[in-house]
Amino acid sequence: MSRVVVLAARPQGEPRESDFELRDVPDRAPGEGEVLVRNVLVSVDPYMRGRMSGLRTYVGPYEIGEVVDGATVGRVVESLHEDFAAGDWVRTALGWRELGVAPGDALRRLDPDAAPPSTALGVLGMPGFTAWIGLLEIGRIVAGETVYVSAAAGAVGSAAVQIARLKGCRVLGSAGSPEKVEWLRSLGVEAFDYRETSAKEALADGIDVYFDNVGGEQLEAALSALHPFGRVVACGAISRYNAAGPEPGPRNLNLVVTRRLRIEGFIVTDHQARFRDFLAEVGPWVRSGEVRYRETIVEGIEQAPAAFAGLFHGDNVGKMLVRVGPD
Amino acid sequence: MSRVVVLAARPQGEPRESDFELRDVPDRAPGEGEVLVRNVLVSVDPYMRGRMSGLRTYVGPYEIGEVVDGATVGRVVESLHEDFAAGDWVRTALGWRELGVAPGDALRRLDPDAAPPSTALGVLGMPGFTAWIGLLEIGRIVAGETVYVSAAAGAVGSAAVQIARLKGCRVLGSAGSPEKVEWLRSLGVEAFDYRETSAKEALADGIDVYFDNVGGEQLEAALSALHPFGRVVACGAISRYNAAGPEPGPRNLNLVVTRRLRIEGFIVTDHQARFRDFLAEVGPWVRSGEVRYRETIVEGIEQAPAAFAGLFHGDNVGKMLVRVGPD
Repeated sequence: MSRVVVLAARPQGEPRESDFELRDVPDRAPGEGEVLVRNVLVSVDPYMRGRMSGLRTYVGPYEIGEVVDGATVGRVVESLHEDFAAGDWVRTALGWRELGVAPGDALRRLDPDAAPPSTALGVLGMPGFTAWIGLLEIGRIVAGETVYVSAAAGAVGSAAVQIARLKGCRVLGSAGSPEKVEWLRSLGVEAFDYRETSAKEALADGIDVYFDNVGGEQLEAALSALHPFGRVVACGAISRYNAAGPEPGPRNLNLVVTRRLRIEGFIVTDHQARFRDFLAEVGPWVRSGEVRYRETIVEGIEQAPAAFAGLFHGDNVGKMLVRVGPD
Repeated sequence: MSRVVVLAARPQGEPRESDFELRDVPDRAPGEGEVLVRNVLVSVDPYMRGRMSGLRTYVGPYEIGEVVDGATVGRVVESLHEDFAAGDWVRTALGWRELGVAPGDALRRLDPDAAPPSTALGVLGMPGFTAWIGLLEIGRIVAGETVYVSAAAGAVGSAAVQIARLKGCRVLGSAGSPEKVEWLRSLGVEAFDYRETSAKEALADGIDVYFDNVGGEQLEAALSALHPFGRVVACGAISRYNAAGPEPGPRNLNLVVTRRLRIEGFIVTDHQARFRDFLAEVGPWVRSGEVRYRETIVEGIEQAPAAFAGLFHGDNVGKMLVRVGPD
């Protein structure tokens, strides 16, 4: 038997403990082509909130009573797939569970000597890839431009600010605690605490690109600050994921015409073909320390719901992870 | 002496007669390189509303006490520029006046045998060019896609619907009177009267591109109707130009991320280098009758303010023009 977390109810507003249920489930042996994996670290990500609502977006909703799926890293226990052997580190999509069986074709082997396996869930995984695609493909940043990133100390944001700096941009970033602001400043970011300084004030000199992770007031302030031909990389809106109903959009959307702005949304999975290019560029930066990362690690599969809920309170510095077993 | 209309006050909300003043001004003879032009038709356009507010946008504001500038077509009375001779039809930027002197380099000669000179202010002028750039460069329409155009019976809209049709798209359009809807249907547009049918209902099958001339509720409805990877060509927001203060934006802007939408604004004057390409494509369509156009012509320079105000009430079918002299 091993433990899993299933979705017990669709969250209304803030996700609560009662929306999830910890269960013991029987284990099964892998079949032909399958691999039994013991999860080590399980990812909790803001995008999961939308899937919990049952809305059909770009990826199907979670079903009530099913294990919350998502990315993990773990070790191979038993392999009936020729590409994997017991002990291998792998990146999986097994979700919030301690142990699971996956088709080998759905796994990616990780080289722990190249980078710590946890980075496959953060700076060298979906969050870092999101930052890279957003800046390069959507924002089309150019050296010398000024880029503003909200939720800049989060998993995506902290990758975005550093990639933008390495691409020759001036980078502003906002976060919600002195500790986060200090970390961002150590990364060369002109950081501010949005609870103390309004974005309007902090962006008074103008910006060329806004990498939007939060929506709401930050988006409105950023639109006002965008120079002509500015771009909004619409990556997410964490400030609104728990909203009960629709909220009004920015009051200054008219600027899109007069300043010829572009607001463009994207979903990183549409760009999977570029993942190797991303790793080829950002992997060496992580190894050399030119791109740094932090992780906030919560212990125990039973803590996954709380860790997830904490994302909406800014509990994480860098990537939020749940450790469900030893390395 | 001849008559001009000057801006007397910055309009608050709807432009009123009292915001303008008709004046008699002394005429002057052209100097070296200049041309004396008698205006025949003067253009009134929605974009002028922003310049009247004194806001610095992409083009400077109008100044109080100065003639409202804008496009006209007229006849050369006297020329001290080698490219022009008395009697020539020209397109000018002389604005709301009966007679004026312009540098020859600021004029474009019109061939009245190729197309009626009035079209240089409409379907073969800035409005038509705006439609063409918006669809092709910003919306990047593809044959087989569904395109929705609001204010579809206006100068820009009526060009947009026909160009989109000729490019192989299915075209929906909204307008605010049975007469306009009937005209649009005669052009092959699936037209509806937005006062009787909600855009939400009319767009229920979904769209790929929204050519936005009005903003507000239409934009919100269109966002909800856009298919994944849909585009909003942000051309204008006539429903909001007279708003006293900022109004909330669409409540569904979150769809930009989940559906990977692109909202992009543009100003046609940035694309001037493409004007010849536009004329080369659309000119023959107008001559052959494949693209049709209508004009709403008001008589007398003293009617320019009323004609302008009428744009915001949908008084025009097609291009709104003011006749200030005989051909």
